[in-house]
Amino acid sequence: MPTILGGLAIILAAAKLGGDLATRARQPAVLGELVAGVLLGNLGLIGITGLQGLATNPTLDALAQVGVIILLFEVGLESTVRDMLKVGATAVLVATLGVIAPFALGWWVGALLLPGDGPYAHAFLGATLTATSVGITARVLRDLGKGATPEARVILGAAVVDDVFGLVILAVLSGLITAANGGTPMAYGSVGLIVAKAVVFLCGAIAVGLVAAPRLFGLASRLQGRGVLLATALVICFALSWMASLIGLAAIVGAYAAGLVLEDVHYRPFTERGERPLGELLQPVGAFLVPLFFVLMGMRVDLTAFARKEVLGLAALLTVAAILGKQACALGAIGGKLDRLTIGLGMIPRGEVGLIFANIGLGLTLAGRPVIAGTTYSAIVIMVIVTTLVTPPALRWSLERRPVSGG
Amino acid sequence: MPTILGGLAIILAAAKLGGDLATRARQPAVLGELVAGVLLGNLGLIGITGLQGLATNPTLDALAQVGVIILLFEVGLESTVRDMLKVGATAVLVATLGVIAPFALGWWVGALLLPGDGPYAHAFLGATLTATSVGITARVLRDLGKGATPEARVILGAAVVDDVFGLVILAVLSGLITAANGGTPMAYGSVGLIVAKAVVFLCGAIAVGLVAAPRLFGLASRLQGRGVLLATALVICFALSWMASLIGLAAIVGAYAAGLVLEDVHYRPFTERGERPLGELLQPVGAFLVPLFFVLMGMRVDLTAFARKEVLGLAALLTVAAILGKQACALGAIGGKLDRLTIGLGMIPRGEVGLIFANIGLGLTLAGRPVIAGTTYSAIVIMVIVTTLVTPPALRWSLERRPVSGG
Repeated sequence: MPTILGGLAIILAAAKLGGDLATRARQPAVLGELVAGVLLGNLGLIGITGLQGLATNPTLDALAQVGVIILLFEVGLESTVRDMLKVGATAVLVATLGVIAPFALGWWVGALLLPGDGPYAHAFLGATLTATSVGITARVLRDLGKGATPEARVILGAAVVDDVFGLVILAVLSGLITAANGGTPMAYGSVGLIVAKAVVFLCGAIAVGLVAAPRLFGLASRLQGRGVLLATALVICFALSWMASLIGLAAIVGAYAAGLVLEDVHYRPFTERGERPLGELLQPVGAFLVPLFFVLMGMRVDLTAFARKEVLGLAALLTVAAILGKQACALGAIGGKLDRLTIGLGMIPRGEVGLIFANIGLGLTLAGRPVIAGTTYSAIVIMVIVTTLVTPPALRWSLERRPVSGG
Repeated sequence: MPTILGGLAIILAAAKLGGDLATRARQPAVLGELVAGVLLGNLGLIGITGLQGLATNPTLDALAQVGVIILLFEVGLESTVRDMLKVGATAVLVATLGVIAPFALGWWVGALLLPGDGPYAHAFLGATLTATSVGITARVLRDLGKGATPEARVILGAAVVDDVFGLVILAVLSGLITAANGGTPMAYGSVGLIVAKAVVFLCGAIAVGLVAAPRLFGLASRLQGRGVLLATALVICFALSWMASLIGLAAIVGAYAAGLVLEDVHYRPFTERGERPLGELLQPVGAFLVPLFFVLMGMRVDLTAFARKEVLGLAALLTVAAILGKQACALGAIGGKLDRLTIGLGMIPRGEVGLIFANIGLGLTLAGRPVIAGTTYSAIVIMVIVTTLVTPPALRWSLERRPVSGG
């Protein structure tokens, strides 16, 4: 408990100082939080030790995960299901192109620089480049007040579809590697199962949510006591996040779906009797928990990895593949009014999903060697950092380059 | 992560349903949360399993601990240091009587029912009855809008002093037992050290806080970005809680001190530019995290312990000793306007502090036997539950019996 309390005090203070500097430099606050995290996490380099444990503390990590769930819930609340259906076809097309191109490029980088590692490792490297980490983009869009634009909906919708595609690729690859390693044939049925689960969850959650949410709020409005509106909304958010993670999807997919399903009209019984609107109630909760996620993400960056040559070459090429690959998304942004560059840039960050994939690769073995070697892992970490740090200023530039439709 | 998300959804839903029923029965919402927790934690008795892990999940527990820190911070914010100094002498007298009487009664119960366990075990049993768990009382006072009454200040001030006394008794007893067990003499200097640390911390935190808080808020008001007011307040709260736990005090002592030190006037620069007041910002954070603490506390109750005769007799006598012992506090409530019965009742709950003591007793051995045996531990748990469940309705009755001064 002392570690957690001290960690919370230090991380919150660092977040606000970093946010202040970033805001003064006309950058989104999240960039300042990430950089503050990088500095905090590498204080050991200048002899200040004692903070290393914070970056990997499981409780702080869980609090940060709750924070990113609250963030995606808040972002989801800004759109309705009707808004999403309008951009649905575009989002699927954007996501498809944004998975194929980085996967192919990542495979090619692997084949070029790691010829000894074999096609499975190359394919795995490609897989780590597929899934967009929507947390960063969501924060930047919110910081700049653009969370409800059509571009934002396409990016966030595509990131959800992306996540599903990424999980399918991961499941197929892991299955193939395990089968190749053990000599047993892969169960193709399990691939179908993953796809089916994801589709059923998303469509089911949204369909059931649209019917159930108004009734649930109607029932909840009869409960006596304080804080019922916030608690009811959080229960729906956590329940959907839980179900998403139970069937193997990222929990944030569920949180975003929960936000989409809830609409102002559902909790009118509460606001009519004088309670503050849901967005206003969620804001302090987010202000406490969301910065934890971004500072911790920065703290996990090991600056010494940048000094290793064999890592840097691979990292540089992977990063280029990651950034260029996602620009294929722009081709899918059909509809004359959409700003294609914003969509391509918004899809860049890889964040925690890429790291999760890389971690799984570290644990899979083929012919006695891990599919993802230690140096490859460091290169993936650098790719994740750079795509994460590059997105906020790029997206801000792109959004202010021209007035975004509806923004 | 799935466990935590599911747990959060279930616990929040149970808290609000329980709170609703309690409010309808004209009881404080916290009683409903505790009972909802007891029911959730014992669903195994009617064949519904799968929730056992939640009560002991370390992440949920940490979130609940953060919740109780936020609660004590909120309660502390309702009073100023000047208010506390007015009741200071009374609080110390109340605490002293409220430690001596239960300690003696607990020792006597031990000597009566557990003659074979020896004086150290009896003294230890007395020690588990000393420290008031201020969380329950603080919640009830808040639920009923009485957090700023002189009675509330005496109770909360006495509970802080209590905590210090309890820790000293625990330290002395543990030292004596370790010395008796190992044949080494006890370091009496360490007792003095514990007392000195506690006094220095409390006086130091308050003195430094009074000087530093206005400057800190002045500096923070120059920071750009959202949520700076809430973050600054939380940084002060977590930092003081951290320091308290670093020197071996309960973290909530630091949170309460932080709340005492902060005053509305400190964050006027924020409210003047249109930000909402701190209390309003903290409320949603508390509404999310505080119920976790009370539901989890209820979930840790094992109803089957109530069915064991040898446990029940000891538990009943211990509970009576705990309740009657704290009524000695009323004698210390000098000053004609104070409602003595309210103060005596407000000091009843033992909660987590008693459990922490009992846990330490389980781990200490004397002549090869634990100082606190398994059945004694169950009896202590029952005592904690009953004092916790009994306080909300008793306090509510007492507060509404006559109009409390200043309430």
